[in-house]
Amino acid sequence: MNKLETRILKDGVAESSSILKVDSFINHQVDPVLMDEIGEEFAEHFKDYGITKVVTIESSGIAPAIMTAAKLNVPLVILKKQPSKILNQNLLQTEVTSFTKKNSYELTLNGKYITEDDHVLILDDFLADGEAATGAIRLIRMAHATVAAVAILIEKSFQPGRGKLEEQGFEVYSLARVKELDKGVIKFIE
Amino acid sequence: MNKLETRILKDGVAESSSILKVDSFINHQVDPVLMDEIGEEFAEHFKDYGITKVVTIESSGIAPAIMTAAKLNVPLVILKKQPSKILNQNLLQTEVTSFTKKNSYELTLNGKYITEDDHVLILDDFLADGEAATGAIRLIRMAHATVAAVAILIEKSFQPGRGKLEEQGFEVYSLARVKELDKGVIKFIE
Repeated sequence: MNKLETRILKDGVAESSSILKVDSFINHQVDPVLMDEIGEEFAEHFKDYGITKVVTIESSGIAPAIMTAAKLNVPLVILKKQPSKILNQNLLQTEVTSFTKKNSYELTLNGKYITEDDHVLILDDFLADGEAATGAIRLIRMAHATVAAVAILIEKSFQPGRGKLEEQGFEVYSLARVKELDKGVIKFIE
Repeated sequence: MNKLETRILKDGVAESSSILKVDSFINHQVDPVLMDEIGEEFAEHFKDYGITKVVTIESSGIAPAIMTAAKLNVPLVILKKQPSKILNQNLLQTEVTSFTKKNSYELTLNGKYITEDDHVLILDDFLADGEAATGAIRLIRMAHATVAAVAILIEKSFQPGRGKLEEQGFEVYSLARVKELDKGVIKFIE
């Protein structure tokens, strides 16, 4: 069991069979020591992938993503969530529907910051239905860059996100793979 | 001239007499080396202040704030922008009106993560009219904690933010103090 899984068992809260709260160390209060260790782990795993940029989606992925970018010594690009379409020739946008939050937004990237020479590591805190990651992949392709892999802190393995991404040929590397949230008990895939 | 000021002169864009764009190294694309240096600078300045938590407002302040929190070895708490009031006994909320973005939001804190024993460093990327920082101070007081100081990357010194905070007795420590944006030329206070 790695440090993130140990911490999830200690401080995570299984609110229902599908909701895992990690507000006390990742999403609202953030533990910088853990973020540094996560950055170290991702940088070690992806050190030979030729990553040129780390890309995350605002805002919960920013803390682990900047730590990972620092250790890989590449820039971080933060994809923005805009409520509506913006007409500007530099901006790339794609609509993402969040099942968890029951809303839609335009995921937005200024095409200046990702180019055809980029080989991008997408990094996010959660992978559930895969809609956000799939939207990020669409944007990166609109910018004519390539996706090296998808790095995730916590994967809800009982939801279809990993399957959708793997079907498209992407590697998904998750630090914690949650098999089940059952009556408040959190179980990981071994 | 410090590293942030040098970088602003190199890569910042004065779009008008009041708008300074730093999208290429702070707000959209983020330079992790610069963020690390900023964290180092803030941690050095505030090392004897007895800081127990760093607090920032999502989302542009998160990258420099997690670096600062890591170097001070204290947790980071991210204040959330909610579009509307949420009724929950743990949540503290205060309305903030952004003049720049011409919108309002409920700045939100779960009272579990800031307590009366906390001595908080508020950190944000920009200080302009001071509305966001003032909202953060209100929330921290609602949580019965104390504010140690306000740390800012870029202060628009021609706007009233610093004055408002100093009038209330708060120290404002800004890495770059922009005196004027004049016909595309960026001038700092010496």
